[in-house]
Amino acid sequence: MNLTAATTHDGVVERAFTLGDVTGVLWSPETPTADAPLILMGHTGGLHKKSPGLVARARNFVTGYGYTVAAIDAPGHGDRPRDERDQQWVAEMSAARAAGESMRRVITDYNASLAERAVPEWQATIDALQALPEVGAGPIGYAGTTLGTAIGLMLTAVESRIRVAEFGPVFVYEALLESARKLTIPVRFQLAWDDPEIDRELGLELFGACGSADKALHAFPGAHQRIPRTEIDISARFFARHLRGDAAA
Amino acid sequence: MNLTAATTHDGVVERAFTLGDVTGVLWSPETPTADAPLILMGHTGGLHKKSPGLVARARNFVTGYGYTVAAIDAPGHGDRPRDERDQQWVAEMSAARAAGESMRRVITDYNASLAERAVPEWQATIDALQALPEVGAGPIGYAGTTLGTAIGLMLTAVESRIRVAEFGPVFVYEALLESARKLTIPVRFQLAWDDPEIDRELGLELFGACGSADKALHAFPGAHQRIPRTEIDISARFFARHLRGDAAA
Repeated sequence: MNLTAATTHDGVVERAFTLGDVTGVLWSPETPTADAPLILMGHTGGLHKKSPGLVARARNFVTGYGYTVAAIDAPGHGDRPRDERDQQWVAEMSAARAAGESMRRVITDYNASLAERAVPEWQATIDALQALPEVGAGPIGYAGTTLGTAIGLMLTAVESRIRVAEFGPVFVYEALLESARKLTIPVRFQLAWDDPEIDRELGLELFGACGSADKALHAFPGAHQRIPRTEIDISARFFARHLRGDAAA
Repeated sequence: MNLTAATTHDGVVERAFTLGDVTGVLWSPETPTADAPLILMGHTGGLHKKSPGLVARARNFVTGYGYTVAAIDAPGHGDRPRDERDQQWVAEMSAARAAGESMRRVITDYNASLAERAVPEWQATIDALQALPEVGAGPIGYAGTTLGTAIGLMLTAVESRIRVAEFGPVFVYEALLESARKLTIPVRFQLAWDDPEIDRELGLELFGACGSADKALHAFPGAHQRIPRTEIDISARFFARHLRGDAAA
């Protein structure tokens, strides 16, 4: 893992890294605690590791809770070149959108392929991060929506180092349901009730399939791009409870 | 309104009251604040104003937040005599349960009748409570599940003094959906995902119908009798945000 020099802004130390082809970013407190919780954040489809919403949440996790946070670009996203097949999927998505058709089929195929590639990338990233003395082997949480949920569900089902996870709206397909059934860790699902692209029934089906005894589904009006402030607070308390053992959170 | 002498236990002052035929109870802090928020609590079907779960939450509202809390017995519940027609409904419920049949039809009819009678009782209770100098005209919240939801939805739709409400699983019928559509205040719905009596589809339909822009649906595994500790905390923060303007809650 190659880490760039750190830049510090408002109490958050930021370092870009590469691990083979994977490009990532690590945010940590100015005074890191050994074995502090690590949060892995999955960006949404079409965006990247430093999307404004993701960065805002990551910074809040660092300054408000003392976590270390890492995000990586999905294959063909952010700083990573997009191969021909992925370019084709993106073109098919644009065509479907332009024609006013549902993007479900093409996004499902594209997400499934990206998740297959991203899971081993995340696992190698966890290995490399935990080997850094300033990160260490603290408890790990995962948070991500849309593509970040597709990748995160597949990852969480096979990665026992992840102890708690939060997912959002996603086009659901059988492999995701299968991963959800395998989960036993505490999980929170966010559901955008009126999302014009991702039908709410998919989120209900995914929540229903989830095997965890400690699971919650929180639905709010509107589309998935706009999570209410209240739910962001509830999310922060959810992670604090499970990563810091903060019972009062 | 006739109030009995106060008894004080662990920082909570309790007074029983009657208002005509209605029997109620009022919990308040030892040192009441003028115009403190007032929470109205609706008990579940078959129970009464001093059911253990209701009392525990009421006491927490008083000691943790300084609210005044009131609960009244629904007609034919708790300390109130049950008339012949209500006795018949109760017998029909028992028969349906014994036969392993759904109680939906009979509970719907019974709840609709109880709600029709309970709404003016609650309104008179609010009038009388607000006339007490130690209560005053602070903001009002409503919380109740099953029968407490049926009554609370009908009440909240016509009672502009209620500024925030929380509802739970209930057998849904057209009048309830109509009341839900009229709501504009912040509302939180709790949904017991695996409730063996009240199908989750009913809760989803009710949430979907609710007219409020600020609404949330929180689903959790299991039956409606057992609300997770986390959801009780989220509920307390929800009321604090809307009744005390506690933005950080």
